Amino acid sequence: MSKQEGITVKKEQDFSEWYQQLILKSELADYTQVSGCIVFRPRSYQVWEKVQKVIDLEFKKIGIQNSYFPLFIPESLLSREQEHVKGFTPEVAWVTQSGEEKLNERLAVRPTSEAIMYDSYSKWIRSYRDLPLKLNQWNNVVRWEFKNPVPFLRTREFLWNEGHNVYSNEKDLDKDRDIILKIYSDFLKDYMALPGLIGRKTDREKFAGAKATYSIEIIIPNGKAIQGPDFHDDGNNFAKAYNIKYLDEKEKEQYVLQATYAITTRMLGVMFAIHSDNKGLVLPPKLAENKLVIVPIIFEDSKAKVFKEAEKIKKELGIYNPILDDREGYSPGWKFSEWELKGIPLRLEIGPKDLKAKQVVLVTRLGKKLNIKISELSKKIPKILEEMHEELYKNAEKLMKNSIVETNNLNELIKVIENKKIALTQLCKSEECEEWIKSKTNGAKTLNIPFKQKTNLGKCVYCGKKADYSVYIGKSY
Amino acid sequence: MSKQEGITVKKEQDFSEWYQQLILKSELADYTQVSGCIVFRPRSYQVWEKVQKVIDLEFKKIGIQNSYFPLFIPESLLSREQEHVKGFTPEVAWVTQSGEEKLNERLAVRPTSEAIMYDSYSKWIRSYRDLPLKLNQWNNVVRWEFKNPVPFLRTREFLWNEGHNVYSNEKDLDKDRDIILKIYSDFLKDYMALPGLIGRKTDREKFAGAKATYSIEIIIPNGKAIQGPDFHDDGNNFAKAYNIKYLDEKEKEQYVLQATYAITTRMLGVMFAIHSDNKGLVLPPKLAENKLVIVPIIFEDSKAKVFKEAEKIKKELGIYNPILDDREGYSPGWKFSEWELKGIPLRLEIGPKDLKAKQVVLVTRLGKKLNIKISELSKKIPKILEEMHEELYKNAEKLMKNSIVETNNLNELIKVIENKKIALTQLCKSEECEEWIKSKTNGAKTLNIPFKQKTNLGKCVYCGKKADYSVYIGKSY
Repeated sequence: MSKQEGITVKKEQDFSEWYQQLILKSELADYTQVSGCIVFRPRSYQVWEKVQKVIDLEFKKIGIQNSYFPLFIPESLLSREQEHVKGFTPEVAWVTQSGEEKLNERLAVRPTSEAIMYDSYSKWIRSYRDLPLKLNQWNNVVRWEFKNPVPFLRTREFLWNEGHNVYSNEKDLDKDRDIILKIYSDFLKDYMALPGLIGRKTDREKFAGAKATYSIEIIIPNGKAIQGPDFHDDGNNFAKAYNIKYLDEKEKEQYVLQATYAITTRMLGVMFAIHSDNKGLVLPPKLAENKLVIVPIIFEDSKAKVFKEAEKIKKELGIYNPILDDREGYSPGWKFSEWELKGIPLRLEIGPKDLKAKQVVLVTRLGKKLNIKISELSKKIPKILEEMHEELYKNAEKLMKNSIVETNNLNELIKVIENKKIALTQLCKSEECEEWIKSKTNGAKTLNIPFKQKTNLGKCVYCGKKADYSVYIGKSY
Repeated sequence: MSKQEGITVKKEQDFSEWYQQLILKSELADYTQVSGCIVFRPRSYQVWEKVQKVIDLEFKKIGIQNSYFPLFIPESLLSREQEHVKGFTPEVAWVTQSGEEKLNERLAVRPTSEAIMYDSYSKWIRSYRDLPLKLNQWNNVVRWEFKNPVPFLRTREFLWNEGHNVYSNEKDLDKDRDIILKIYSDFLKDYMALPGLIGRKTDREKFAGAKATYSIEIIIPNGKAIQGPDFHDDGNNFAKAYNIKYLDEKEKEQYVLQATYAITTRMLGVMFAIHSDNKGLVLPPKLAENKLVIVPIIFEDSKAKVFKEAEKIKKELGIYNPILDDREGYSPGWKFSEWELKGIPLRLEIGPKDLKAKQVVLVTRLGKKLNIKISELSKKIPKILEEMHEELYKNAEKLMKNSIVETNNLNELIKVIENKKIALTQLCKSEECEEWIKSKTNGAKTLNIPFKQKTNLGKCVYCGKKADYSVYIGKSY
């Protein structure tokens, strides 16, 4: 690979330009003629397929079923729940024509599917016997944001799961909330090698129409926080707006309780941004489609033998879906750079000298170089991949911990935000205090209220009255 | 289940009403407030997930990769290939507003993705080394048809795979064409228990923008044919419109060759329509999520013992994902009807008498009743399911064969169509003859030209000149 084909700026110097080059040059995504909409190329879509597969399996264990609802939502239906519609209409893409005819009513391209799903729910749910109902969709949604679009992190169309559960009682809802948040955070940890801050959103920052929102916030290398997977406890807000009632065991009519939850393709961008480096993409091994590239070191007189051994190794290590880069006319160094850019976790080099010694050189994407006997590859690779995952997680955890500063002093808090860090501070539940802090910090918001709270809370960092919780505050992506 | 909850008309008397009731009452789909758009409820979406899983695995074996392109296509981009745009614009849903702002250019909600994908292809493809390129999407598309919508069979939004392959030579394209058509027809046969008519479309009926279209046509019980999976050889039509060129091995610039292929959720409707009966849904066992329902025959004094044995059987037959219907307060007959309506392939009845004899009654959805020793269930069930599949396929094949009448006489042909059958006749390649036949038969169209042709063709059934091929003609859904 030539220098220009690689990333030409440093992550630590110009994160934004580095990220854009990473996404394009690693062939994860590409821009299109539709502003704010990207192509998910196979290298990133493969990762999304793994997200779907792993999480879907966990969902099914608690009785969540997949379904598919229409892409379009009539305006009148979208408008039923007032908070909800206020939250979304500024960003809705509207279909107003079919062929050359004007439609009688505008159709929203779904920004989320509460409205269209709950209209069906109100028909389907009659009795306590119909509950719980747990339906999920893996689909595309559109939110026509006007902020500067960034591949994966902020796109006008994105992919996600949207789960919409209905319960007759809070106990069942809360139980599933804990399980679903754990499914998401386990996936982040065990597959994406990412830690996150788990907690409840303040009322000011909760989802439009929800009673409470729970989120996993992740800190990216530019010091901003980004909202990852989330879970919304809607109480009976939507049940009232969409008239979803059931007869309980005593034949009494009740409104249902509802909850929704999502993970989006945003998380791919978060993961690419956190782990990757100036050489290109770094992928946690479990999410890499090809975990290994074999690069034979080619000399004319030993070529045949080396290729033969490389083929043999490729077969033996088939479970890692290895790429054998047997292209001639490219130097090994050129190939190394290309596969580093594209984020293949392991590189196996084999030349005539190695052949004689019955060994290979194995280089991890994190820079570790090992001489390994060919006969021991199968045994050693699983451990090496596991260690890579651990190392990635630890680095990400360090990044997170280094970004958080605990303070209960307003001036210090302002400085923390100025220094592109995240503050852990104490607040009362007045939305005014949040509003003031936002204005004083040029836009920092509360991220979430961690589940684990101190037993002895002090004073609100802004108004000085008794604090209701400690909470993370930072600039949000 | 009460009588009204079942299907109240006969398939053979009022196919259209029967089909609608089937879809709604078996909980396969439901109507929504968006005309022509349905909810794919879990019972049908599960089937679609199986379609995706099986076919995707086969696609990957020939190097087809998944990706995701934007839902929206700017009008200017859609208009580049003239035949293509003419074929689709009357049915396009247009986004013209975002929030309350008018967009500068209308965005088509994709009716198919050639335009948006090939714009990217023209950027990505530079050299013969970049070919073949084989990308697929599993996504949603919208075609705002004005014909009467029918769940699955004709919906304004549907789900499909759209594969878009690029080649440097015809040989590779033709090879993949044969493989891909086989993947589709094998799936129809081995999973959906459906036979089809495979062949090439006439020029008049080929895809808008294609050089040649190959299709699998399926005949449904109302005597109409419906186009199933298809494959389009686009030659270099799109390459010229979207400027997709590469340098060949001699550094000479060449247009690429392209092909596309699809299977849609229409096929679910076709399958439901063909196999199901007046009791409700009949599903080929391989596509049933729950292959078995266990209905304990409950008497107060033996209940505990029977439940215990039923639980044990449920566990042993876990690979069939059995439902244990232990609801009390419903008669066995009521339960039998419900599970027949919902298409569970096998029903296992167990009561106190069976328990004593260490056997159960096993009833297939096709009406076969067997007494089987409990100890022999695991061994016997696979064969029973296989036989069900065979029987379904044979019945569908009989329906197909009985629908086809071979004739080379114009009056006879007209009668065949009047009698709601499909004709196999001989035609010259003049589009006029096709047009005339269509007008004389009140709308019958050529379906496709079977691959296996007679060696001695006669005269064109319409103009009497030398025939170019024998071809299926019928009313098309």
